Amino acid sequence: MRWKIAARPIGRELRIGDFERDSAPPELALREGAIRVQVLMLSCDPAQKGWMENVAGYAAPTEIGGVMPAGGVGRVLESRAAEFAPGDLVQGTLGWSDEMVVEASAMRRVRDEPDAPRLALGLLGSSGLTAYFGLARIGVPQPGDTLVVTGAGGGVGSIVGQIGKIAGCRVIGLAGGADKCRWLTDELGFDHAIDYKAENPKQRVRELAPGGIDVLWDNVGGQMLDDLLARIARKARVVICGGIARYQQGGRPPGPASYFNIVFKSARMEGFLLSDFADDHDIGRDRLRTWLAEKRIVQRDEVVDGLENAPQTLMRLFRGENRGKLLIRVAD
Amino acid sequence: MRWKIAARPIGRELRIGDFERDSAPPELALREGAIRVQVLMLSCDPAQKGWMENVAGYAAPTEIGGVMPAGGVGRVLESRAAEFAPGDLVQGTLGWSDEMVVEASAMRRVRDEPDAPRLALGLLGSSGLTAYFGLARIGVPQPGDTLVVTGAGGGVGSIVGQIGKIAGCRVIGLAGGADKCRWLTDELGFDHAIDYKAENPKQRVRELAPGGIDVLWDNVGGQMLDDLLARIARKARVVICGGIARYQQGGRPPGPASYFNIVFKSARMEGFLLSDFADDHDIGRDRLRTWLAEKRIVQRDEVVDGLENAPQTLMRLFRGENRGKLLIRVAD
Repeated sequence: MRWKIAARPIGRELRIGDFERDSAPPELALREGAIRVQVLMLSCDPAQKGWMENVAGYAAPTEIGGVMPAGGVGRVLESRAAEFAPGDLVQGTLGWSDEMVVEASAMRRVRDEPDAPRLALGLLGSSGLTAYFGLARIGVPQPGDTLVVTGAGGGVGSIVGQIGKIAGCRVIGLAGGADKCRWLTDELGFDHAIDYKAENPKQRVRELAPGGIDVLWDNVGGQMLDDLLARIARKARVVICGGIARYQQGGRPPGPASYFNIVFKSARMEGFLLSDFADDHDIGRDRLRTWLAEKRIVQRDEVVDGLENAPQTLMRLFRGENRGKLLIRVAD
Repeated sequence: MRWKIAARPIGRELRIGDFERDSAPPELALREGAIRVQVLMLSCDPAQKGWMENVAGYAAPTEIGGVMPAGGVGRVLESRAAEFAPGDLVQGTLGWSDEMVVEASAMRRVRDEPDAPRLALGLLGSSGLTAYFGLARIGVPQPGDTLVVTGAGGGVGSIVGQIGKIAGCRVIGLAGGADKCRWLTDELGFDHAIDYKAENPKQRVRELAPGGIDVLWDNVGGQMLDDLLARIARKARVVICGGIARYQQGGRPPGPASYFNIVFKSARMEGFLLSDFADDHDIGRDRLRTWLAEKRIVQRDEVVDGLENAPQTLMRLFRGENRGKLLIRVAD
């Protein structure tokens, strides 16, 4: 089975009707350089909504009627490429389908280890690498810095906070709901968590970080970013990673009116794409793997079984219902 | 004579009634460490409105009934400080008054050369140094880069564009009015000028810089910044220097909704204060002086005679009526 894109969710929330299920038989012919992959595990990422909208800034254009793209891990069933043999584990842009035919050159090999698909899509995949490079290279945390993370309960945010602790920062996470906040402090080692649904983030940050925010990692945008920009410290680094607020609202949400505070604070606000650091991805993966082995960092994720649940699962991501990386298990 | 602050222009345009003229006699007593200065020339700067509003981010708090502060150059009349003797030229925060008593330690000596007050308040003062350090250290222009400057006709913008040319950039300035635009290209050597009152900046920048903006220098904020952020190139540097739009409007104008484009473009938006580079101010001044001697850069300014015209002159600045640095000559 597979899920195709039926409509573009431009300026509105995702709907179940944006996807159409079909049971077309898998492609039979395999062109030179291609591989047939059994899909094992798929990743849920905010950028997927951007892909569906065909937002100019994002990489892969999508088509109505095309298979919904998703980062994933699969096992090679058949190969017409020298790089891979049947049985190999591969990772790359797959899709919401049991089976995909893809260009071998667009895939990378995954080490066949316990929990390989989960790790490859989480801590050792784009979430972990985004957290690592964005924090290390753009946020440049210094020991003793106060690091504030919005969307701290998500796949990226939950890793950013843990790396921040390794870097010697005081880490404050913002997340929705008391349970998720407890999870951040008790299981992930955040120093403080602010429940933005029940507390006033601006005021709580003022109490918890009277000296201001040295590194602000923003996954959210909108009002929350605006509030926090008003609380940055001198020479602060503001890492713009995502904009869940932006994905959900109709039209473009207003920009952060507090942006001018970067002048008063001699601060910087910077964006990045994971591909900017492509030459160093192996370095990042090695560090994350080391910290994982040393138990200085944990991957907390939610794995939902069954491709049939893919649309509802992705919708949960945008409602902020997940704790850590949200994954869809398609096959074992 | 002198002008005192009569009201704070919070969230609205400056008014003549925000100032009150009086003719109090100068302070007679000179405490240890102070100097009495005859004010010669005063600078008009956007930040002065921020000072009057007592915006938290700005340095000097002001008081209703206090002399309106202004950067200026004066001649020492009397000294109780070892650093200065009568006759010396000094620069620092003075005020709208014929004569001021100030702490010697807050002033710096100015070389007694032809046109010393004009140069010290323009090219060799905060305007020139802001342009130099903001562009060199934050904008980091590379030869061949496209540099776009908003508020290009102002004291800082007119120097930024000229330094951009020295750095090998293609320079596009935005200013209000055909005359001012001609002045930018014909007298200051900008490659192109866009009259934002008559042309569509977003579309014109697309035509003039199809590869996008590598360095964006923003003095304006508001809609113009938002439009231009949509046109930045990969790895662009956006230097936030001022926000004239911000000073004029009631309440806080909306932030730039296009801020998220810094993610798609792996770009950076950064603010600074001139004091960040205090250790290097002499280096900047030397470079500007050299370029001035080599006629690679010119100071274009407007000098208005008479302290009695100070309020109207400052108001012209906020209406964007000046070409280059706007100065008030108090005495010769």
